[in-house]
Amino acid sequence: MNSVLVASNRGPVSFTLSEDGVLTMRRGGGGLVSGLADVAGEIDLLWVCAALSDGDRSAVRLAPGGRLDQAGYDTGALRMLDIPPAVFHRAYNAVANSTLWFVNHMLYNTPQVPHFDIRFRREWGSYRDYNAAFALALAEEAGPGARVLVQDYHLTLTPSMLRGERPDVRIAHFSHTPWAPPEYFSLLPEDVGAEVLSGILGADHAGFLTERWASAFMDCCEAVLGARVDRAARTVTHEGRTTRIGVHALGVDGDKLWARACEPDVESHMAALRERIGDAKLVVRIDRTELSKNIVRGLAAYREFLATHPEWHGRVVHLAFAYPSRHDLPEYREYTAAVQRSAQEIEDEYATEDWDPLILNVQDDYPRSLAAYRLADVLLVNPIRDGMNLVAKEGPVLSPRSALVLSREAGAAAELGRDALLVNPYDVSGTAEAIHQALIMPEKERIERGERLRAAATALPPTAWFAEQLAALTS
Amino acid sequence: MNSVLVASNRGPVSFTLSEDGVLTMRRGGGGLVSGLADVAGEIDLLWVCAALSDGDRSAVRLAPGGRLDQAGYDTGALRMLDIPPAVFHRAYNAVANSTLWFVNHMLYNTPQVPHFDIRFRREWGSYRDYNAAFALALAEEAGPGARVLVQDYHLTLTPSMLRGERPDVRIAHFSHTPWAPPEYFSLLPEDVGAEVLSGILGADHAGFLTERWASAFMDCCEAVLGARVDRAARTVTHEGRTTRIGVHALGVDGDKLWARACEPDVESHMAALRERIGDAKLVVRIDRTELSKNIVRGLAAYREFLATHPEWHGRVVHLAFAYPSRHDLPEYREYTAAVQRSAQEIEDEYATEDWDPLILNVQDDYPRSLAAYRLADVLLVNPIRDGMNLVAKEGPVLSPRSALVLSREAGAAAELGRDALLVNPYDVSGTAEAIHQALIMPEKERIERGERLRAAATALPPTAWFAEQLAALTS
Repeated sequence: MNSVLVASNRGPVSFTLSEDGVLTMRRGGGGLVSGLADVAGEIDLLWVCAALSDGDRSAVRLAPGGRLDQAGYDTGALRMLDIPPAVFHRAYNAVANSTLWFVNHMLYNTPQVPHFDIRFRREWGSYRDYNAAFALALAEEAGPGARVLVQDYHLTLTPSMLRGERPDVRIAHFSHTPWAPPEYFSLLPEDVGAEVLSGILGADHAGFLTERWASAFMDCCEAVLGARVDRAARTVTHEGRTTRIGVHALGVDGDKLWARACEPDVESHMAALRERIGDAKLVVRIDRTELSKNIVRGLAAYREFLATHPEWHGRVVHLAFAYPSRHDLPEYREYTAAVQRSAQEIEDEYATEDWDPLILNVQDDYPRSLAAYRLADVLLVNPIRDGMNLVAKEGPVLSPRSALVLSREAGAAAELGRDALLVNPYDVSGTAEAIHQALIMPEKERIERGERLRAAATALPPTAWFAEQLAALTS
Repeated sequence: MNSVLVASNRGPVSFTLSEDGVLTMRRGGGGLVSGLADVAGEIDLLWVCAALSDGDRSAVRLAPGGRLDQAGYDTGALRMLDIPPAVFHRAYNAVANSTLWFVNHMLYNTPQVPHFDIRFRREWGSYRDYNAAFALALAEEAGPGARVLVQDYHLTLTPSMLRGERPDVRIAHFSHTPWAPPEYFSLLPEDVGAEVLSGILGADHAGFLTERWASAFMDCCEAVLGARVDRAARTVTHEGRTTRIGVHALGVDGDKLWARACEPDVESHMAALRERIGDAKLVVRIDRTELSKNIVRGLAAYREFLATHPEWHGRVVHLAFAYPSRHDLPEYREYTAAVQRSAQEIEDEYATEDWDPLILNVQDDYPRSLAAYRLADVLLVNPIRDGMNLVAKEGPVLSPRSALVLSREAGAAAELGRDALLVNPYDVSGTAEAIHQALIMPEKERIERGERLRAAATALPPTAWFAEQLAALTS
């Protein structure tokens, strides 16, 4: 029986199954995963996650009670749940990624979607089943009075379900996404919206990345549930229970990141990039190809910048890394195609024999990304809405003299806004002008701003962030 | 010089120019126009509007100073503005209908649009010019201390422009649309959003159709402009001036509407419809084919109702009137096609030799619409967002025993919500079930509810609504 448990959809490892039946384990990526992995080793912690692939399922089925560590893998204490693929698919793709993600990032094309019909009701049932599977596993594994940290929009119902099974444990929920204002949250069917909110309110502590998202959550509890909200005390009381609301602005571990970025594989990518771009200034963006990341408008802004500032022709290169994401969803495949079309248009309009104005890379390559950060003169981070955005925090750590163009709709803007050049992500012209301003920012100013950005970005590294969650359940 | 002036994009009449050069005048439709036309005759009022078509322009050019009444037309005092076609097109289509309308109805497909680039800046300049043309005409025509009533989202800048020219006149602005919450209003570039808000705040009185939209406007003034808002007194103070905020819930003139609906052309349409549908129950909807009207989800709800309630097969007909709207905009052409596809799918799935489950009409025909109201057993009004929705108010006047299924996102829900069956417009299953509940509502209940709906719908007819505006400028 464990005293600290973490639950998240994605775990720290994944498995692939080769054709001849050999299982290979790989350590995963993702902001949350790397953050938790840093601390998981340091305390007595059991991690509960879902099997995401056929390889994961094969590994789980060979492990007693889904405990991969007990099957001999070096994972730390880890229980992986073998949720039936059809249930998982409906819960993960249809509800979590196509509904809750879209609501909280305000991504819907409202005249057409969402469309909550009888099919959605089946999908919602699967989301309940998926959440219940986590609640059941946590109830089984938690020691008396254990602390349980439930992560993100995949698992909004688990807190109240677990509370029903195990009133003795202390539960935290953390949202890594933005939260929608009530007028947008109410796109959800009434009962579904209420279930999400009261699911999270099953926790003793509900955490968010910024004041803005915490505040929107409280607004929704008041508008949708009629819950009693005390904004000064940051509590929500509903059906006789009180949940504390916390803000924990996840940052980066600067020393660790810098050490990684000084390894030879990164240095060799730096040399290759420098060779390719010569002494041109470098505008860098690094994103998953996710609808919220606003890559198409970012490319349009760069194009308008080239149109309105011809003095930069031949003297600047935009390095855009747009890594694959969620290719199960048609909107994402179409978006990837739109990114590629936009890039081609810039090439067609501006490329010369001597000058490539844009380099678009769509293959994920971590050391190459670190190299790009280190060489950047300008880092462009323009999401239409983002829980935090760790790229905006990694950049200043790795490039002390790069200027940051940052969307005011990223959670990171709360901490970095004073020293970044803030933009409205829908304002292509404003973003174009910010790129220009960033490029001409005097050296002294970029270094001074960079120092303050770095300090803010590293203020709450993952270990401290995790410790805050735990402490919130102790007090 | 006039003591009361009204300004709106569309005026009470329009002109067509035949090939042999003959101008024909027609009285126009539209909720605002009919409302104002009712009162325009009764007081000494000058109406200022824009020329919308080539016919209008021809008429204006033959009239001294654009005064159509002085050119011999029976229009009441009317000045029509000949704004250059390119300016008008950018102001009307690109800014008013594709930007401000989309913001306030929350219609954007946010990952792709809006896209505020250098082209938008040119369009915005035209919107300014168009508003300035109205302000100039009003300044010329207004007598000392005149009262000027400026209408809707086309003319948000006119109040402050007019105030600059003529500090002596008293100005009201009225918004016939919803108003967006600050998180959505802020999609607009900062300076554009601020210009819209302070444009309206140039008025002494800013009117809205419901408390909800008035409240959202005040929230935006606070969040975007940093204006001082007194919610109890309903005032907004900005740059030393105070604007009063009013709510005037435009309703219908029940007697006049009923009299029109008893004329022979309507009766003959009723007979034809009754012949066609036999004794089946009738579910009616009447809309322009406007993205906000949610016709596709309405048809999907009817389809789900047929799937989940087979007992109604052969016993119900859905009469959907979807009139052409804004075919200059590609989104609207695509939406019209989607409506027709949805209708075809219902036909393909359910029609039999003896039963047509759906009749879709896309040609505007006012007497036929009135006939449909009178025969309706259920009136379906499910917009995703709507300033008021007068269909929801006309129905109860014309069909004392029809049940009303109404979107909670229509402004009309504030007054009619208690006696309508309220639905979440995104919830197709919930709407399907509401159609069923409406059909099985006992006769006594539908008549009792109908009486209260009719009373609420006719509480503030156009003449009284207009009188409230004027009175607000007198006090």
